[in-house]
Amino acid sequence: MSTLLITDIGELTTNVTGLGDEPGDPTGLIRGAAVAVVDGRIAWVGRDGADAAAIVDLAATDRTAADDRTGGVTVVDAAGRAVIPGFVDSHTHLVFGDDRADEFEARMAGQPYVAGGIRRTVAATRAASDAELRARLAGFVAELHAQGTTTFEVKTGYDLTADGEARLARVAREVTDEVTFLGAHVVPAEFAADRDAYVDLVCGQMLAAVRPHARWIDVFCETGAFTPDETRRILRAGIDAGLRPRLHGNQLGHGQGVRIAVELGAWSVDHCTHLDREDVRLLADSDVVATLLPGVEFSTRHPYPDARRLIDAGVTVALASDCNPGTSFTSSMPLMVALAVREMGMTVAEAVWAATAGGARALGREDVGTLALGTRADLVLLDASSRVHLAYRPGVPLVAAVYRGGSRVG
Amino acid sequence: MSTLLITDIGELTTNVTGLGDEPGDPTGLIRGAAVAVVDGRIAWVGRDGADAAAIVDLAATDRTAADDRTGGVTVVDAAGRAVIPGFVDSHTHLVFGDDRADEFEARMAGQPYVAGGIRRTVAATRAASDAELRARLAGFVAELHAQGTTTFEVKTGYDLTADGEARLARVAREVTDEVTFLGAHVVPAEFAADRDAYVDLVCGQMLAAVRPHARWIDVFCETGAFTPDETRRILRAGIDAGLRPRLHGNQLGHGQGVRIAVELGAWSVDHCTHLDREDVRLLADSDVVATLLPGVEFSTRHPYPDARRLIDAGVTVALASDCNPGTSFTSSMPLMVALAVREMGMTVAEAVWAATAGGARALGREDVGTLALGTRADLVLLDASSRVHLAYRPGVPLVAAVYRGGSRVG
Repeated sequence: MSTLLITDIGELTTNVTGLGDEPGDPTGLIRGAAVAVVDGRIAWVGRDGADAAAIVDLAATDRTAADDRTGGVTVVDAAGRAVIPGFVDSHTHLVFGDDRADEFEARMAGQPYVAGGIRRTVAATRAASDAELRARLAGFVAELHAQGTTTFEVKTGYDLTADGEARLARVAREVTDEVTFLGAHVVPAEFAADRDAYVDLVCGQMLAAVRPHARWIDVFCETGAFTPDETRRILRAGIDAGLRPRLHGNQLGHGQGVRIAVELGAWSVDHCTHLDREDVRLLADSDVVATLLPGVEFSTRHPYPDARRLIDAGVTVALASDCNPGTSFTSSMPLMVALAVREMGMTVAEAVWAATAGGARALGREDVGTLALGTRADLVLLDASSRVHLAYRPGVPLVAAVYRGGSRVG
Repeated sequence: MSTLLITDIGELTTNVTGLGDEPGDPTGLIRGAAVAVVDGRIAWVGRDGADAAAIVDLAATDRTAADDRTGGVTVVDAAGRAVIPGFVDSHTHLVFGDDRADEFEARMAGQPYVAGGIRRTVAATRAASDAELRARLAGFVAELHAQGTTTFEVKTGYDLTADGEARLARVAREVTDEVTFLGAHVVPAEFAADRDAYVDLVCGQMLAAVRPHARWIDVFCETGAFTPDETRRILRAGIDAGLRPRLHGNQLGHGQGVRIAVELGAWSVDHCTHLDREDVRLLADSDVVATLLPGVEFSTRHPYPDARRLIDAGVTVALASDCNPGTSFTSSMPLMVALAVREMGMTVAEAVWAATAGGARALGREDVGTLALGTRADLVLLDASSRVHLAYRPGVPLVAAVYRGGSRVG
């Protein structure tokens, strides 16, 4: 039995309604808290004081019993600093070769973004060895951990052949349970003259090859990528094969993404920058999460999605990084929180919830994103007295320690 | 003699025109470079290859000679990564008590910023012990170093009594040569009924008390802070006492800040958000640096200054953080670069120059901000192949190693 105790937490975000100082607070914020972790799961969470002291004593007794064969007791004094659940980044594209720094520079100098830039990364990814992809991905995982992200999704979509997509999914599956098949990222150059044949491939041989390694299926539903009909067909094929649907929608202009997400019962529709009133109503009346990706708007100079409107309508909102070499090469969930507050009308509490519990909802996960009895002990100790500092101190690395399943990873 | 060699630098920003691959490039960018540092100063900088190899051999010979009594030789393989000069943050307010996270949260929820918020920090700073201020400041210095800042200015201005301002200057002077007397930050509450008496105090007893610890004098010239006439009087008193002038101007609305800066030969006028055509012309025709502080606009949701217009007119632009607990509690120069590119029309090259050489100009420093023979060896090794990544990967901690005077500090 290994035990971790964190005491003197100035401010603990649990994301459990009813657990916090204010009864209706969905972030379950406790000022003056402690957490006990046993074998990687939350074993106790509450107000620092008598109960917490008893738990510390108990742990001390255990330690005296010297049963250190399978672990031990670690006591961490948070010294009044804030703790939040580990970030859940539900949308990334982290298996790829090369980068597109020059394209970014050119875009910042005034050139427009077109979805076709993806094809360049496809060429570089196809050319990369497994070892190269793995080394790169390991670097990103370390980067995610260092910034407090303890659960992340990874999409395929930079090879666009059956074997190649399966390779990307296999490599991704080595670092996360949340692998998404995104053969429908863009129609590759070699199929430009025959889109239907590519959609057939995605729904047939490619899906069959990727299926063993993936949990999700995704489509980039956008002008220049896949049409609404193609999107429906591909998502349905994935669902029939046992994958769960999610999709990229309403990013560059208004489209059918949200409607298709609701119609097919997707877990999440991602981007949601261009929505009409009917889209908002559909989302509010459904269980579909609207995942907002402000790193994209930051890096493409597009207008930000209106999170306030969505939240006020009752839509469940998640924040994710969309980390990818084209439109958002940031993996910083703290920056997503800061941008959501600066640019999208979210409060800090809403933004932190969206970047943790919201991401977990978007991935259908109940074991992460909240700190309650039995959830995985994914905790971020901040170098700050309050989670507000994530927005108040933008860009400053404020992550002091990161625990995933009770073990230090950052 | 201690020697540091950095080899296989994928891309080195020297900020020396004529030293780079392209003759007219003011950032003096060399692809495939090496740097040699002897006793904390740049001893050689150039293309990696024969010359660099000779220097490495020389160092190896030195090492064989075993003259390790006063140092040694350290060889760092940059492995193709980028190196830039240490950031020069020419505008910070880092000696203060408490913070104003709640005020930030309220402002993000729609409340307007008024300069008077400073008075709250004044009360907290007066109440803080020397030890508290020192501990806090030491934390900020570590934070600055970790983010690649190797030279920084610190202002007083959160006590507003003669003894108290001298205390702040003394504490600041322990960590930097660039201490600025900012008694004219805001008129303190106890002088609200008699502004003239406060200006008298600033120009008399307070100036005399702070003078031994400071190099600069600054005034917050703004509606709600100090009038143009008060600004002139205070800056002139400082100049007469041997301090160099700089000022806060044109932040919240159009004012006389730029005109006064040019008239009095200030090294820099900081903020420059609201400028008319005459201001731009005056700046372009002078040696005054326009220091832009995008952290403020990010954290107050105000419009960003138009850096493009200034640069196109021939004005020298610097970027700084303005790190302070009210309007910009970020110390992240990488974020300033990213915001300058996203929001202010600067190219990455211009933004990196402004955050290094530009800051040095704003502080009248020739020994930092550039990597040339004899300058202080302040170097930042990035976890990236190019400086472009500072804007391309916003929020991601990309600083792999920081050297100040040739010694590792981050």
